[in-house]
Amino acid sequence: MAGIRTPSPISRLEQDLPDVYRQFQEIAQRLEQHYHDMQDLEFTVEKGRLYMLQTRSAKRTAQAAVKVAVDMVEEGLISEQEAVKRVDPFQVYQLLLPRFDENQKKQAEKEGRLLAKGLNASPGAATGKAVFDADRAEQMGKAGTPVVLVRPETSPDDVHGMLVAKGVLTARGGATSHAAVVARGLGLPCVAGCEGIRVSEAEHLFRVVDGTQVIHEGDDISIDGATGEVFAGIIATVDPDFEKETDLRKLLGWADKFRRLGVWANADYPRDAQRAVIFGAEGIGLCRTEHMFMEQERLPIVQKMILAKNKEDRQAALDQLLPFQRGDFRGIFEAMVNPETGDGYPVVIRLIDPPLHEFLPSYEDLLVEVTRLETEGGHEQELREKREMLEAVGAMREMNPMLGLRGCRLGLIFPEINVMQTRAILEAAREVAREGKKLQPKIMIPLVGHVNELREVRRQLEAVAQEITAEAGSAVEYKFGTMIELPRAALTADQIGAVAQFFSFGTNDLTQTTFGFSRDDAEGKFLLKYVDGLEEPGSKEKVKILPVNPFQTLDREGVGQLVSMAVEKGRAANPHLELGICGEHGGDPDSIEFFNEVGLDYVSCSPFRVPVARLAAAQAALSHGEKDK
Amino acid sequence: MAGIRTPSPISRLEQDLPDVYRQFQEIAQRLEQHYHDMQDLEFTVEKGRLYMLQTRSAKRTAQAAVKVAVDMVEEGLISEQEAVKRVDPFQVYQLLLPRFDENQKKQAEKEGRLLAKGLNASPGAATGKAVFDADRAEQMGKAGTPVVLVRPETSPDDVHGMLVAKGVLTARGGATSHAAVVARGLGLPCVAGCEGIRVSEAEHLFRVVDGTQVIHEGDDISIDGATGEVFAGIIATVDPDFEKETDLRKLLGWADKFRRLGVWANADYPRDAQRAVIFGAEGIGLCRTEHMFMEQERLPIVQKMILAKNKEDRQAALDQLLPFQRGDFRGIFEAMVNPETGDGYPVVIRLIDPPLHEFLPSYEDLLVEVTRLETEGGHEQELREKREMLEAVGAMREMNPMLGLRGCRLGLIFPEINVMQTRAILEAAREVAREGKKLQPKIMIPLVGHVNELREVRRQLEAVAQEITAEAGSAVEYKFGTMIELPRAALTADQIGAVAQFFSFGTNDLTQTTFGFSRDDAEGKFLLKYVDGLEEPGSKEKVKILPVNPFQTLDREGVGQLVSMAVEKGRAANPHLELGICGEHGGDPDSIEFFNEVGLDYVSCSPFRVPVARLAAAQAALSHGEKDK
Repeated sequence: MAGIRTPSPISRLEQDLPDVYRQFQEIAQRLEQHYHDMQDLEFTVEKGRLYMLQTRSAKRTAQAAVKVAVDMVEEGLISEQEAVKRVDPFQVYQLLLPRFDENQKKQAEKEGRLLAKGLNASPGAATGKAVFDADRAEQMGKAGTPVVLVRPETSPDDVHGMLVAKGVLTARGGATSHAAVVARGLGLPCVAGCEGIRVSEAEHLFRVVDGTQVIHEGDDISIDGATGEVFAGIIATVDPDFEKETDLRKLLGWADKFRRLGVWANADYPRDAQRAVIFGAEGIGLCRTEHMFMEQERLPIVQKMILAKNKEDRQAALDQLLPFQRGDFRGIFEAMVNPETGDGYPVVIRLIDPPLHEFLPSYEDLLVEVTRLETEGGHEQELREKREMLEAVGAMREMNPMLGLRGCRLGLIFPEINVMQTRAILEAAREVAREGKKLQPKIMIPLVGHVNELREVRRQLEAVAQEITAEAGSAVEYKFGTMIELPRAALTADQIGAVAQFFSFGTNDLTQTTFGFSRDDAEGKFLLKYVDGLEEPGSKEKVKILPVNPFQTLDREGVGQLVSMAVEKGRAANPHLELGICGEHGGDPDSIEFFNEVGLDYVSCSPFRVPVARLAAAQAALSHGEKDK
Repeated sequence: MAGIRTPSPISRLEQDLPDVYRQFQEIAQRLEQHYHDMQDLEFTVEKGRLYMLQTRSAKRTAQAAVKVAVDMVEEGLISEQEAVKRVDPFQVYQLLLPRFDENQKKQAEKEGRLLAKGLNASPGAATGKAVFDADRAEQMGKAGTPVVLVRPETSPDDVHGMLVAKGVLTARGGATSHAAVVARGLGLPCVAGCEGIRVSEAEHLFRVVDGTQVIHEGDDISIDGATGEVFAGIIATVDPDFEKETDLRKLLGWADKFRRLGVWANADYPRDAQRAVIFGAEGIGLCRTEHMFMEQERLPIVQKMILAKNKEDRQAALDQLLPFQRGDFRGIFEAMVNPETGDGYPVVIRLIDPPLHEFLPSYEDLLVEVTRLETEGGHEQELREKREMLEAVGAMREMNPMLGLRGCRLGLIFPEINVMQTRAILEAAREVAREGKKLQPKIMIPLVGHVNELREVRRQLEAVAQEITAEAGSAVEYKFGTMIELPRAALTADQIGAVAQFFSFGTNDLTQTTFGFSRDDAEGKFLLKYVDGLEEPGSKEKVKILPVNPFQTLDREGVGQLVSMAVEKGRAANPHLELGICGEHGGDPDSIEFFNEVGLDYVSCSPFRVPVARLAAAQAALSHGEKDK
């Protein structure tokens, strides 16, 4: 059970100790009849005598779990509530992960490319070049090559490689081995304890035990974390078809009846928004506008805007960007039309957030180019241009960009950006509304720490709205709100709540600043070790510093305290305040339970997490109701 | 009064309107007699008629203010309390700033190097190369050249230059001009409104109006922010001699009787500690151990320790560092002997805090060198070595080092470092204690966010203490505490207080994470503009986003809320908890008032701020007492 041995199949017991096996079978049958459910049994055999250690309802594959629950309702055995409570949201998540194309998989089997089968340690399908050490995996992964890290077993020293790998394959270790635990934590497909292969670290290869096949470093392999299969070569993946998952959709329909929390989605493009609606999202809780800036035809204009030496040049670039942004927002508004009512779902659009140097060429690359040109001599024109760019990019560098000129600070220092974005949003909304649709555009201000920041941005926005109203001859409607993603915003949520119409908790950033953990650095450098446990001198037990990764499951004691405080203070200052959350935690069942408890109105998560959130929100409401009794 | 005009001397009034001048003199005399104090008068003259607008007790030079207060006590006119309340702590600060050497200054005058005199806008003496634009000042300043920024007047566009300059000189603007306000905020010497010079930006020079002298870019100048004098060439500065400031010392002696807060100092070296004791510090509230790592003979060993590929190599480097560190701590303990009792004052030593790459060569420099060597070809040995270093430094880089692998995280990932530092502290304490002195060593753990971090470090430390006790045959005494510098530490101070014997608030870092403001980036990029005010379209009024720079004066609403919470929770969990503060705010009078109010035990600040803190702490206690009545 400690996860350090790879288990043998139960059929082995039949061979070795046939009497014990028969006795075991008898007991198992009685237990399953008693519990009306498949059982997961633990036992031991000492000196030929069978001891039963534990029994509990067994884990099923995702599909089976959903099907059994729905069937039992339809056979009148359990209630809809009971069915909703019985399915683990994580299984719903599994059901919606990309899978290998079944035809290609069969074809691969036929061709003898199924190499071995290990434990299905973390679901999902992964394809990439086999790599046998973590440093090399990190190197190749960072350079953009998809890799699958293959190790005899993993240790904390391998984590930096796992962070960039598409999947992990180990020859030893069970479902609670380091590789399995870390991979599940990272949402990374993993096949563990694959005893059918022998890894040679020295030769950078693995051999298939029952065959002649050898996989060398750099060869393509495909692993299926849901089945434990390992294939040579590439197998294409397909997204599961939610429309065909009728059992799941029935179950989620029941869940919708019981949940109190709204479930919205984070989506930046119309196609994401459409997918979110199919998955059952009732709004867009976060539309990030900066991804739109990254598109190929726009980036040069964005760079001109950033590097402008005066207001006029900046304005000229922004004027060029306006029609693009207006088109983007129009697309999102159109995608978010409720098929039942014909009106628009709420759409929360966040004004620009990241530090501007993210849109510029890399400082390091420029430094290398300039040095090369200087060393070679000549190239005067090119050198001058590159040097100028190096200087401009250098002037924008920050030691800690996460805590620098970003979020609402950008629009306060460069008000023209906010003016352009607001105009694009409101003009797009007016265009779509003209087609008879009722829209709910909401403009969201990121990274507010002091109420004065929000006041000043509101003034900017209201000026634009007035201009547009004057141009159109009728008022343009929108809501104005802010993210709560800095401790100071939560601490002063009474002041901020008086100026905003809605709050959306940015729990990723709030976790960053509350813990002082950089999301970009912490996981690889120390955080996963904190969660996995530190080695103790003279002891085999590891010391866990953190129970879970706080970027995945909300830290209720610390970050949660700030969320509760902000909910209370915000609502006290403004009883109509709408409250949501749009961090990664919006799709995490444990965090959703907390958000239900503190009384948020909705959670917003990535589209493919929407079904998970619908189920988890229903479970939270049902168990909250039980607590109340 | 708006600060946009340079005022004329009052003697000008005598010439222009002699009758009005006489009338004014009469009124002034009556007012000063009435108030028993020198008056600061505002008036206007309209159509030949004098209107008095305001009168208030006048600001005096620092020396005069202190002398007047002490004299009045000795003449029985006011009480000691009243004297303590009358002197502005900022004036004490001025008294202790470095000044120009009086002899050199006289010599410079004789040589005709006194060029002009402007407003004494921000005290202090500065010497450097005259530079006429902010970009150039930033470039030269960052390269290590001392510069004085000279501008016709400054605007927010000049702030990045002011940040690296030693002083600022402007030709226009009064005591509330942009240059003056920002310079005072930065603690930067400034002479403003120096109408005796004409600045030519185009020619990169200034001309003295009443003479033939011209100062070109790159020429040395010296400015005295306390007198407004501007000199050509370099004048040496001297530190004021606190021992000779008898009036000040008398005043501070009275202050000590009234204050409740202890005043300690932040000092890393024995010489700082000695100076702190002279200034009246009653302990060391923060001894940073990392500065010791930077010293020339140690840095190579520190780098070996950081780049070690295994525990053995790391341990070998740490073994080499141990005697150095032991010597450092011994020096501090010896310097902190109370001259009255012969026993040691408390000394709080913080274990290593900064990210390790601060001790390594710059990544960018290595990148340039490697690129140059590659482009040139050859140099194989050198190239290999540099590449290896580049890779090692690259592996340690972080996107946001402030939120990365630093603080207690270092000692948890590399326990050997904590073990070495603890051993050095405790062995040094034992050596000094053997000489008959009673010592109070306190070991402080930085950047704790979760109580488990502190628990694990305490286990490490206790193991070392046990070893040393076993070696020595008698127990070694120390206290164990933590910094509260992350929002999560404040939010969970009940849990943390149960494990620690003392808290020291690290308000610099706490301000960073509570606001999400990088200390390294925010001031130059947006924070000073927030404080100075943003320009509003169509309005002459600027909109202030923040009332003050929160890195200078504690933000009571946000950061202060966390401090109060931590005090309350910490004391509830552990009534014996000792509470102090060791951020920059420990020397700021307004912040000291707050720390007095929330009930901290002591403040700790840089040595030359200790007298300021003694006075401010007394004023806080006196006004707190009055509030209670």
